[in-house]
Amino acid sequence: MTQSKGPVTHLCTHTLDALYVRDRDLVEELMGKVTFTEMMFLHITGRMPGAADTAIVDAVLVTLMEHGLTPSVIATRLVYHSAPEALQGAVASGLLAVGSQFVGTMELAAEILARITTDADGVEVAARREVQAVRDARRPMPGFGHHMHKPDDPRTPKLFEIARAHGVPGTYIAAIETLGRAVDEAYGKHITINATGAVAAVLMEIGIEPEIMRGFAVISRAAGLVGHIAEERASPSARTIWDTVEKTVPYAGEKGKG
Amino acid sequence: MTQSKGPVTHLCTHTLDALYVRDRDLVEELMGKVTFTEMMFLHITGRMPGAADTAIVDAVLVTLMEHGLTPSVIATRLVYHSAPEALQGAVASGLLAVGSQFVGTMELAAEILARITTDADGVEVAARREVQAVRDARRPMPGFGHHMHKPDDPRTPKLFEIARAHGVPGTYIAAIETLGRAVDEAYGKHITINATGAVAAVLMEIGIEPEIMRGFAVISRAAGLVGHIAEERASPSARTIWDTVEKTVPYAGEKGKG
Amino acid sequence: MTQSKGPVTHLCTHTLDALYVRDRDLVEELMGKVTFTEMMFLHITGRMPGAADTAIVDAVLVTLMEHGLTPSVIATRLVYHSAPEALQGAVASGLLAVGSQFVGTMELAAEILARITTDADGVEVAARREVQAVRDARRPMPGFGHHMHKPDDPRTPKLFEIARAHGVPGTYIAAIETLGRAVDEAYGKHITINATGAVAAVLMEIGIEPEIMRGFAVISRAAGLVGHIAEERASPSARTIWDTVEKTVPYAGEKGKG
Amino acid sequence: MTQSKGPVTHLCTHTLDALYVRDRDLVEELMGKVTFTEMMFLHITGRMPGAADTAIVDAVLVTLMEHGLTPSVIATRLVYHSAPEALQGAVASGLLAVGSQFVGTMELAAEILARITTDADGVEVAARREVQAVRDARRPMPGFGHHMHKPDDPRTPKLFEIARAHGVPGTYIAAIETLGRAVDEAYGKHITINATGAVAAVLMEIGIEPEIMRGFAVISRAAGLVGHIAEERASPSARTIWDTVEKTVPYAGEKGKG
Repeated sequence: MTQSKGPVTHLCTHTLDALYVRDRDLVEELMGKVTFTEMMFLHITGRMPGAADTAIVDAVLVTLMEHGLTPSVIATRLVYHSAPEALQGAVASGLLAVGSQFVGTMELAAEILARITTDADGVEVAARREVQAVRDARRPMPGFGHHMHKPDDPRTPKLFEIARAHGVPGTYIAAIETLGRAVDEAYGKHITINATGAVAAVLMEIGIEPEIMRGFAVISRAAGLVGHIAEERASPSARTIWDTVEKTVPYAGEKGKG
Repeated sequence: MTQSKGPVTHLCTHTLDALYVRDRDLVEELMGKVTFTEMMFLHITGRMPGAADTAIVDAVLVTLMEHGLTPSVIATRLVYHSAPEALQGAVASGLLAVGSQFVGTMELAAEILARITTDADGVEVAARREVQAVRDARRPMPGFGHHMHKPDDPRTPKLFEIARAHGVPGTYIAAIETLGRAVDEAYGKHITINATGAVAAVLMEIGIEPEIMRGFAVISRAAGLVGHIAEERASPSARTIWDTVEKTVPYAGEKGKG
Repeated sequence: MTQSKGPVTHLCTHTLDALYVRDRDLVEELMGKVTFTEMMFLHITGRMPGAADTAIVDAVLVTLMEHGLTPSVIATRLVYHSAPEALQGAVASGLLAVGSQFVGTMELAAEILARITTDADGVEVAARREVQAVRDARRPMPGFGHHMHKPDDPRTPKLFEIARAHGVPGTYIAAIETLGRAVDEAYGKHITINATGAVAAVLMEIGIEPEIMRGFAVISRAAGLVGHIAEERASPSARTIWDTVEKTVPYAGEKGKG
Repeated sequence: MTQSKGPVTHLCTHTLDALYVRDRDLVEELMGKVTFTEMMFLHITGRMPGAADTAIVDAVLVTLMEHGLTPSVIATRLVYHSAPEALQGAVASGLLAVGSQFVGTMELAAEILARITTDADGVEVAARREVQAVRDARRPMPGFGHHMHKPDDPRTPKLFEIARAHGVPGTYIAAIETLGRAVDEAYGKHITINATGAVAAVLMEIGIEPEIMRGFAVISRAAGLVGHIAEERASPSARTIWDTVEKTVPYAGEKGKG
C-alpha cells in the first residue's frame, strides 16, 4: 500500500470494523483515553504528547479562545443571523479574520526567536539587531505591546510559568525576555511581551513550527465562535449591531436626504 | 453596565490587568487549571463541566476529528496549495463542507430523539411511527447506516460505554437503541446506529441543544484540517490531486481535441 | 475523450495555443465580443443568451449588487481589516451571509411560482391556496414585504418593465401579480412584491432554475463587496465599527467592572 | 448627514421609494441602462466607465472566469456535494483559493510595472534591474511563464489588442513588453507574458490600483464557480472525485491493512 511513488497520508485509514489515526486504533486506544488536546497534538505532530506538550497546548488554546466582540465575532454573529441554517458558514466567516493583523504576528515573533537563538553572535547581540531593524523599518515589534493591557499583559507570565513548571528547556522563553529588555532599552520605556509573543515562545519550546502556529489559533477561535453563536441564539444582538453600524457609517453623498 | 435594554454579552470582558470569561478570571482561574475541552464547555454552555460532560465532549471531539481524505480535507489541501499565506482560509474552506449531507444528520437524529422521548404514547410506539414516516418519505434514516462499517459502526458502542461509565441518565441512549430495533424490524435487516447518531444521543445526555451540536463537529474538524495542512506542508499531495481530478473528469465537448 | 462512463465536464478545455469554454474559442470567439454577463450566462446555462436573457440578467445583477452597510458588508470590512493580505477571504466572509434569511427567499418564491403556474386548478385558486398555507404556518410570504420600502419596492415594477420590454412570455410575472392580489386580499392590506420576489419571477421567465438563482445573488454581491473593500482602503471604517459594537453589546457579568 | 467626523460611506443610501448607488438613482438611472460590468466599475472606482474601461474590464472578467477543474473548482464541487443547501458556502470555499500562488502574481506584476514606469533611469534599465533581482532571488518572474501555453499565452495579445483598439495610453502594455524582452534576454529563451501579467497591464491602463485587482479575479471566478455548481447539479462528479483522491493518496501506516 505504501509503494506508490506518489503522495501518501499517515493520518487515517479504516477497515470494516475499525479506524486508525496515526496508526492508533481510534476506538480501542484513543476514544475515552485521550483528551481532545492530546488527540490533536498526536494528529498534527505525529507524536503522542508528553505532560509539558499537553499543558502548554491546553494553556495556549484556553488563552486564545475568547476576546469579546472582536471583528471575528461580529462577522460570525452577523452571518449566523443571515444564514442560521449553515452554522459552519458563520464560523468560517469569523475564522477568516485570523490573519496578519492580529494572530499573524505570532509567526513573525517566532521567526525572530528562531533567528536570535541560532545567531553566532549570541542572543543579546542578535536581539538588539532585530529591534533596530524593526525600528528602522518603522514597524511594530511582533509579539510586543498591547492597546489595552498595561503595564503588562497578564497572560504572558502565566504562560511562561506553566511552561517552566513542566520543565521545558526554556530557550525561547529566555530569548523573548532578552528581546524584551532590548525593546525597553531601544524605545526608552517598558513595552509588554503580549500574549501572541508569549504563545510563540511556549509553542517553540515544544517544537511547533512557526508556519503551523496559526492553526492553533484557528482551532481555539472556532470554539470561541461557537460560544458566540450559542449566545446569539439565546439572546440575539445581530439586528442591533446592524442598525448601529448603519448609523455609525452614514451616507455622505448628495442624494437620498430628507 | 448591564442596565442597557439592548443586547448584552455574558462571555468576556477585560480590565487593564485582567480578562474574564464567563465571570472567571482567565489568568488566575482558567489558564493552567482547565483543559481546552473544559474551557469550551464553560464558554458554550455557561456552566463548568462535570466529569461526565468533559468525558463525553472529549470523546465526541476525538471521534469526529479525522476521517481520511474527505471532501473537507481535499478542499483544505487544495486551497492551502493555492494560498499558503492564509492558513485560516484553507481551514475555512474545508469547514464549509460540514453541512447537511454528513454532519447535518446529527441534528435530525437529535430532533427525532427529542420527539420520541417526550411522546405521550411512549418511546416504542413513537419510534415505530418515526421510522414509518422516514420510510414513507423514502429518505435515509438520520443517524443510521454506514457505507463502510458493517455490521456495526465501532464508535457507537464505545461512545455509549463512555457515557454510561460516567453515570449519565441514559434516556437518549436507550431511545436511540429502541429506535434501532424499530429500524431493523421495519427494514427487515440490521442497520447500524452510526457515529453521527451516537454523538447526537450522548450530547443530548448532557444537555447540548440539537441546534448547536454541529458546532462541536466544526471545532473538532478544524483540528483535523490543521493536521492535514501540517502533513501537506511536509509531503505535498495537492498538485497530484489536481492533475488526477483533471483526468478523472475529462472534457466532453467537440473542440480542443488532439 | 468522451467515452468514459465516469463524470465529464462540458465547461472548459485547453490546448497548447487555445482555450475553449462551452466549445467556443475563448480568444477568438469570446474575448472582446461578449460582455461578462453574456459570458456567465453561456457558462451557467450552456446557451448563448438572447437580448432578453442579457437584459434581465444584467438588471438582476445591477439590482442585487449593493444595499449599504448590510451584515455581509460589515463582515467583509472587518475581515479585510484583520487580514488585508487575503482579499479573497474578506469577500468570502461576506458572501457567507447570502443565506436563507434574505436572498434565500428568492428560491421559496420561485418554487411557489412554479407550483401555481402548473396547478390544474389554475393560477388564481392555487395562489389563494399558497397564501393560506403560509398564513396557517404563521410564516412570512416569500418574495413579499419590505421593512423599508413602502408602499412599494421601486425595483419591482422596473424589473417587470425591463422583462416585458424584451418580450418575455410573462407567465411568471403575471403569476406573482396574481399572488400579490391574493396576498393583499388575505392580509387586508397592500404588501409589496419585493425585489427578491421580482427577481425570482423574471429569472423564471428566462428559464433559470430556482436552485441556481442564489448563484446570481452571490456573483452580484461579490462585486458589491469588492466595492466596499475599495472604499475601506480609501477611508477605513472597521476600527470604528469594532469600537462601536463593543459599546453596543456590553458585558453583563459581575466581574471586570470599574 | 455628512458632518460626522467618523467614517462615512459614499456607496449607497435609500429612502421610502428610492435607492441611490454612488449618487445615482438605482431604478431610474441604472437598472436597464447599465450592464453589470458598468455598474461594478462605477461602484468600485466611483466614476462611470468610458468605452475603454468597460471593454477592458469585460475582457478581463471573460478571461479569468473559467480554467477547467482547478483547485478552486474542486473545492466548490466537493463542498456543494456536502452542503447543497448552502450554495454560497460552496462558492466561498472555492474563492478562498484565489491567493498568492496563481492570481496573487497579478499584484506583484503590477507593482513591478508601477516601479519601472516611474524609474528615473527609464523603463529599459529599470526592467533589466527587476529581472536581475528576481533571478538573484531565484523566484519566478511574476506575470511570466505558463505551464501549458507555449510558446505564447494566446490571451495576452488579445487583451493588448482590445485595450489598444480602445485608445488607452499604452504605457503599461509597452512596459510589460519591454520587461518581456529583458526576461527573454536574461533567461536566454522566450518566456511568454501570461494572462495574469497581461491583466495587470491592461487594468493599470485604466487606473485600477494593484491592491484591488484581485477583486476582479474574485468576481469573475464567482461566476465560474456558479457554472460548475450548475453542471454538478446536472451531472455530479464529486463522489467520483472523492473516491479517486482516496485511492490517489493512500494510507502509508502499518495498521488497517488487508
